[in-house]
Amino acid sequence: MTDLEQRLGYTFGDPALLSRALTHRSHSAEHNERLEFVGDAVLNCAVAAALYRRFPQLPEGDLSRIRANLVNRDCLLLRAQDLGMSGLVRLGEGEVKSGGASRPSILADATEAVFGAIFLDGGFDAAGKVIEHCYAEAVNAIDPAASGKDPKTRLQEWLQAKGMPLPEYTITAIEGEAHRQTFTVSCRVHVLGRETTGHGASRRVAEQEAARAALAELAP
Amino acid sequence: MTDLEQRLGYTFGDPALLSRALTHRSHSAEHNERLEFVGDAVLNCAVAAALYRRFPQLPEGDLSRIRANLVNRDCLLLRAQDLGMSGLVRLGEGEVKSGGASRPSILADATEAVFGAIFLDGGFDAAGKVIEHCYAEAVNAIDPAASGKDPKTRLQEWLQAKGMPLPEYTITAIEGEAHRQTFTVSCRVHVLGRETTGHGASRRVAEQEAARAALAELAP
Repeated sequence: MTDLEQRLGYTFGDPALLSRALTHRSHSAEHNERLEFVGDAVLNCAVAAALYRRFPQLPEGDLSRIRANLVNRDCLLLRAQDLGMSGLVRLGEGEVKSGGASRPSILADATEAVFGAIFLDGGFDAAGKVIEHCYAEAVNAIDPAASGKDPKTRLQEWLQAKGMPLPEYTITAIEGEAHRQTFTVSCRVHVLGRETTGHGASRRVAEQEAARAALAELAP
Repeated sequence: MTDLEQRLGYTFGDPALLSRALTHRSHSAEHNERLEFVGDAVLNCAVAAALYRRFPQLPEGDLSRIRANLVNRDCLLLRAQDLGMSGLVRLGEGEVKSGGASRPSILADATEAVFGAIFLDGGFDAAGKVIEHCYAEAVNAIDPAASGKDPKTRLQEWLQAKGMPLPEYTITAIEGEAHRQTFTVSCRVHVLGRETTGHGASRRVAEQEAARAALAELAP
């Protein structure tokens, strides 16, 4: 059993499927794009089913919004990091040199491909179980009252409801090597004289974190 | 076993799920929109898996295009007609009076909801089997060489490759009662002096049929 299989909680019957899921198209013809196509569909379906069961009162529109937040690239990248995918994806030489091993799109796509490989290897229930395990923390953190809206949207709506101007987001720092950077963003709510900060692997994530901190202060 | 269950080839353990799948939001609070959310995801996943297995040589982009053609509303409406969904969906009085019983969106959505209900009742494999059965004819008709492109796109590309102007589509007839209309569209390829016609339940379907007929004449 590989370390990745241990973290997934799944052992492949056909290890060639896992190997293919971890092969980027820059490496060889036996690459993971078809598995990513399957994995994207499996992920969407497993998350849809999990949300349907967990939030029996939420209407379809809220379930759709929550799911969109869970299956987007930022959220997939967090799953890739949890699974330690960086360094496991086989890349062509050019990709290696240009830092592909930690490129968000490559890691997110390979993570979907791994989900697809589990589905083909062990069926939907096996893949669903792994996906639910990977997403358990993110799903537990969902506030159904927020109806799946992301923190920036909620902060904007909270301010608008009070007739206040929109917050201002500014990148205040970018640290770390290329492809492994941490962004720091400040969120200023001028009219209230408040400023919060957020950190993340992309500007978008850092902005959402800064907005989340502002919400925690303003509308706890 | 109901007639619909017979056509689906599936008997519900919990008939309340089927009943809910057949209830439009205009009828009551126990309507089918959450089931439709699940069914849409199940349909996408089952079709993705079927295409992955059936076309082992096609790249991801072609699989995506083919799937988009199979799960769109026009194609879902054909499945709804095969299943005899019209008349089975419970509607509010206003919807009944305005012809909701044969409205394409209501029938397509209820069909997705039925797929979602089977998934929740019997699991993914049960739903996948029903979906593969419903889509067998459509999947068999796929020409992988056409890479999932629809007839209008293929006709356009064929003409452009020869430096010819684009075809012209015109509605020449709309027949039948409201909500059960048949559209007739002509497709004129002026430079070749050809004109073909197509019929369908919507303008889009009729245009595709007219383009298909043109392709059959020009590039058989």
